[in-house]
Amino acid sequence: MTLLDALAHPIVQAPLAGGASTPALAAAVSEAGGLGFLAAGYKTADTVRADVATLRALTTRPFGLNVFAPPAAPGDAEAVRAFAGTLRGESERAGVALGEPRHDDDGWEAKLALAEAERLPLVTFTFGAPDAAVVERMHAAGAEVWVTVTSPAEARIARDAGADALVVQGVEAGGHRASFDDDAGADLGILAALQLIGAAVDLPLVATGGLATGRAVAAVLAAGATAAQLGTAFMRCPEAGTAAAHREALAAESPTALTRAFSGRTARGIVNRFLREHSADAPRAYPELHHLTAPLRAAARDRGDAGGFHLWAGQAHALAAEEPAGDLVGRLAGEAAAALEQARRRVPGSGAG
Amino acid sequence: MTLLDALAHPIVQAPLAGGASTPALAAAVSEAGGLGFLAAGYKTADTVRADVATLRALTTRPFGLNVFAPPAAPGDAEAVRAFAGTLRGESERAGVALGEPRHDDDGWEAKLALAEAERLPLVTFTFGAPDAAVVERMHAAGAEVWVTVTSPAEARIARDAGADALVVQGVEAGGHRASFDDDAGADLGILAALQLIGAAVDLPLVATGGLATGRAVAAVLAAGATAAQLGTAFMRCPEAGTAAAHREALAAESPTALTRAFSGRTARGIVNRFLREHSADAPRAYPELHHLTAPLRAAARDRGDAGGFHLWAGQAHALAAEEPAGDLVGRLAGEAAAALEQARRRVPGSGAG
Repeated sequence: MTLLDALAHPIVQAPLAGGASTPALAAAVSEAGGLGFLAAGYKTADTVRADVATLRALTTRPFGLNVFAPPAAPGDAEAVRAFAGTLRGESERAGVALGEPRHDDDGWEAKLALAEAERLPLVTFTFGAPDAAVVERMHAAGAEVWVTVTSPAEARIARDAGADALVVQGVEAGGHRASFDDDAGADLGILAALQLIGAAVDLPLVATGGLATGRAVAAVLAAGATAAQLGTAFMRCPEAGTAAAHREALAAESPTALTRAFSGRTARGIVNRFLREHSADAPRAYPELHHLTAPLRAAARDRGDAGGFHLWAGQAHALAAEEPAGDLVGRLAGEAAAALEQARRRVPGSGAG
Repeated sequence: MTLLDALAHPIVQAPLAGGASTPALAAAVSEAGGLGFLAAGYKTADTVRADVATLRALTTRPFGLNVFAPPAAPGDAEAVRAFAGTLRGESERAGVALGEPRHDDDGWEAKLALAEAERLPLVTFTFGAPDAAVVERMHAAGAEVWVTVTSPAEARIARDAGADALVVQGVEAGGHRASFDDDAGADLGILAALQLIGAAVDLPLVATGGLATGRAVAAVLAAGATAAQLGTAFMRCPEAGTAAAHREALAAESPTALTRAFSGRTARGIVNRFLREHSADAPRAYPELHHLTAPLRAAARDRGDAGGFHLWAGQAHALAAEEPAGDLVGRLAGEAAAALEQARRRVPGSGAG
């Protein structure tokens, strides 16, 4: 039994670190019978604590908090300096100094302590599996633990650490790839990942990556997932913190690509000027490049320049609708039910007339 | 109405050009209530004619013939010569001369004439959409026409040419990407592709790419496909012409990658020595590189050297079972029905108790 079994709708909001995540969005999803999420990534523990308080004033239903597992070794310092050199033109044109490319752990210990102190119902981890001792700490504090994985090998590691469920991320997903090792990431599409991971481990699976419609929700349930996690699909909701230029880019049919240009870690975004010009030069160095480029990206976002910041988006972004999050949850669930009915009529023996 | 509506099971065998395709495999699939396929690619029209005759002696049920659309412009001759230079060591070690890197159209006109003369029920096209005149010729000869697509833009072109149905190929698929332009191919996973293409055109869709289980068949039906097309899943069947070393490689859990090293056109295979050593050097030049490397690959296959030839495989290859093709079709359909029943129980309002 996990929190998933108590949901009215098998729909989970992705954490959406880096701007789109808000307590209002998480509350609307949980209130509608899905599972809302807060993103701890890039925030201080104090900010996260305030978000939790805001959310708890909006709903008494369960929600999740997603924490970035600490990065492994720092990237190559010389490669980071060289990349910074290629950004000098960007910096001068925008009149914005580059950030300090520091290597940090995003407040790992403070966020674990926060999760314990707040007795959060669900803590999830991205970029790696916590070790078994951390999982036990969370369990002792009353939290369920999920880990995001992208391959059968990662799924086995997370299972062995004691995870209660796995978020299976397909390569279609927007934002950062959750691969434990960004140098050796898998490229499995969500359906291939669900089949392979479902055969490798016996845990509830939450599927994510390019799911924008009720049909896709139905598809991953049929593939064996217990629930579908949608990120980009919620980014045009009024409750989301998505920047205006980002919302506009999401609505158009345009290609996405994987890149390390923005953060030093592989992530999927809509192909824009910054991605085109800097992907080839960007080394693996996370979160150093994240901090290095952060001021440039914030300035571009503030001036509405969609060419100059990270337009995180899953492959099906053009199907994201502008609609209140609670309505979206209900609509997706209804469409999923209808899609399963329609599919049954294609398969004899599934009880259809 | 298409041939799809008459199938007992919504399961189509992928054409599997380049070795695995046999009349016995196609016959077994069609006899079991799926839709079998012959591959015209790389064969002379006379060989294809003989395959059609062999197949028709084995079954009276419908089947498809897949034809490669002609390649566009030749690749850069200097780049082809340079790549040939990098293969000199392979050639010397194996004692096998490289092939002539010729640019040809794989017998395009002869194969169209064959399809007409044989009054084939279904002709499908890969690597591009035929123009409307060719579609009309096929229709006039009594054939349905399907086109394989990888993006909404390609889907619109195929629809406008008059296709009766589309095969939607996700990036998970083994073997060649079907992109119309190999320099500007999309990277959509199958679920994202089905959602986006389903929103763009109103044609029956056959989904392919990384589908190895009945759960995955159910998933693509839920996502709106009329049928699922499986390739790798059939490659370990006794009726398939798959080489022994290739069968063995498919059974292991191992990564796949996209590469132009074998043919000059992007294709997915299990990562092996040849792929690792030659992917970085391989230019876009199809079918020149196919012909150039063909003798090397044939020799490696003959001596059972899995490191030396194209181990085409979709991402879920480790789940392909060794089982007669007819049994596989029945098992997949049964598993798909069960998967849809299970999924319904997760979604209120879909008629489940």
